[in-house]
Amino acid sequence: MTEFSRLSLNQKTVNRWSMPEALEGCARAQIPFIGLWRDKVAEIGVAATVKRLHELELKVSSLCRGGFFPARTRAEFETHLEDNRRAIEEAAQLETEVLVLVCGAAPDRDIVGARAMIAEAIGILAPFAQQNGVKLGIEPLHPISAADRSAIVTLEQANDLAEQFPLEQVGVVIDVFHVWWDPKVEQQIARAGPRILGFHVDDWLVPLPDPLLGRGMMGDGVIELRRLRRAVDAAGYTGPIEVEIFNQAIWDEPGDTVLERMKKRYLEHVLEPVLEPVLEPIFEPIHEPKQKTQEAL
Amino acid sequence: MTEFSRLSLNQKTVNRWSMPEALEGCARAQIPFIGLWRDKVAEIGVAATVKRLHELELKVSSLCRGGFFPARTRAEFETHLEDNRRAIEEAAQLETEVLVLVCGAAPDRDIVGARAMIAEAIGILAPFAQQNGVKLGIEPLHPISAADRSAIVTLEQANDLAEQFPLEQVGVVIDVFHVWWDPKVEQQIARAGPRILGFHVDDWLVPLPDPLLGRGMMGDGVIELRRLRRAVDAAGYTGPIEVEIFNQAIWDEPGDTVLERMKKRYLEHVLEPVLEPVLEPIFEPIHEPKQKTQEAL
Repeated sequence: MTEFSRLSLNQKTVNRWSMPEALEGCARAQIPFIGLWRDKVAEIGVAATVKRLHELELKVSSLCRGGFFPARTRAEFETHLEDNRRAIEEAAQLETEVLVLVCGAAPDRDIVGARAMIAEAIGILAPFAQQNGVKLGIEPLHPISAADRSAIVTLEQANDLAEQFPLEQVGVVIDVFHVWWDPKVEQQIARAGPRILGFHVDDWLVPLPDPLLGRGMMGDGVIELRRLRRAVDAAGYTGPIEVEIFNQAIWDEPGDTVLERMKKRYLEHVLEPVLEPVLEPIFEPIHEPKQKTQEAL
Repeated sequence: MTEFSRLSLNQKTVNRWSMPEALEGCARAQIPFIGLWRDKVAEIGVAATVKRLHELELKVSSLCRGGFFPARTRAEFETHLEDNRRAIEEAAQLETEVLVLVCGAAPDRDIVGARAMIAEAIGILAPFAQQNGVKLGIEPLHPISAADRSAIVTLEQANDLAEQFPLEQVGVVIDVFHVWWDPKVEQQIARAGPRILGFHVDDWLVPLPDPLLGRGMMGDGVIELRRLRRAVDAAGYTGPIEVEIFNQAIWDEPGDTVLERMKKRYLEHVLEPVLEPVLEPIFEPIHEPKQKTQEAL
């Protein structure tokens, strides 16, 4: 166990790196977990990715992403389900237990209808996931994305949805960027308990540079990361802590530089501070005035 | 009663207009209510504003805005309270019952502490507001503004806070832009009931042009305006419906043009559609084929 034993690099944080570069960079930085993206895996294929993971002794914290369920037609909905079945199979092959779901938004104005489609899709997919040894992790997204990426926008809503299914099939993934603002976040983290399948850290920058590509490095924004990490720990979660940062400026930096800063910030802002033993003087020290001033005379 | 009898122009929608121009433009467009901003009123003073309101027979739907309570020091907090007392007095002089509160965000990372300061401030101000015949309208802001404008981010939270005080003192103001994404929005509108002190309409554009100045004209975005207006009506609210749009492109248009479009969109997207009487034929009409085709022979 080292201080980085729970750290995971979500490969989107170093978006310019190819699949092999991300795996090698992660191993070089001695980060034990990596969060993978399907489009990146597709660059070299699942088999080659698994081979390299084994060679480098890396574990996969999660596969991003399934979801995007709502559709305009039944045929389109079925296509979305089929794509998610492939994602579940890939997660199993990549030896991760967690497929992260970004559930998708309404294709029209009907957000209530979109939510019904999401619930139906998860109900159809959940047993198939279990058969493959994979759990579906519903990730509530910040309401800024309600119109184009996810009609699931609070942890309470994700918990309500997850609890409709067996613990072995469906859980939640908590990203601080998406939930930090919520007055019920600690209550809902406690409620999620054994359903917590992932914990993502990053930060909320002020002002927000961009709705999608404006996430910050831990410590550069306003999120009380340590408070939320403590809440997730108290809920019983002992799994990987994944750093997922969508930020163009960070993407433009060399990957190794990003990983070094990420490890430093993880220690400073996410984990507990290491307490140095403090030797307090028992008596106030007596300072002899070095010279008498005019005023003192 | 006309179809525009509940319509209110929030003067921020025509931000370039001076105070007199906004009042005259509103009257010219036969819009019965106007929502005022303190900085605009200050251009000509409260007395001159009231005089002109009377001459033009305009009513004030609300005064924007009080709030911004959280502070770094007790002295700063007291300054904020004092400024809010002036806002309450101005609301009374302007003959509106509603002071809209944008509650303010944490000056540091402590969002829980900021919320405690907001609750304390409202508790101090509420009796003073009642003495002046004014109610405090807590406006929950979209979580996109949680870091810089309001630690109050859901209608549920605003209701929780308002219900700590008498109905005669504190209520909520509902802006569709801020609450449309919330899975509990209809439940919380129903709960707010007689505490609803204002209803604001605008729209959520996709993609969002800007976190602050990217609000859309009704119908240009994805919000189900009619669904939310029906929910507010069903909760018993019969007051003004205020159009408040922060949008640079709209601000750059001539004010009269904006007001005409606003009235049109209000009819099309906010009110119930006017049902034309439909005369249905009792029998299917019998069409004689005009000519026999080759195929029919």
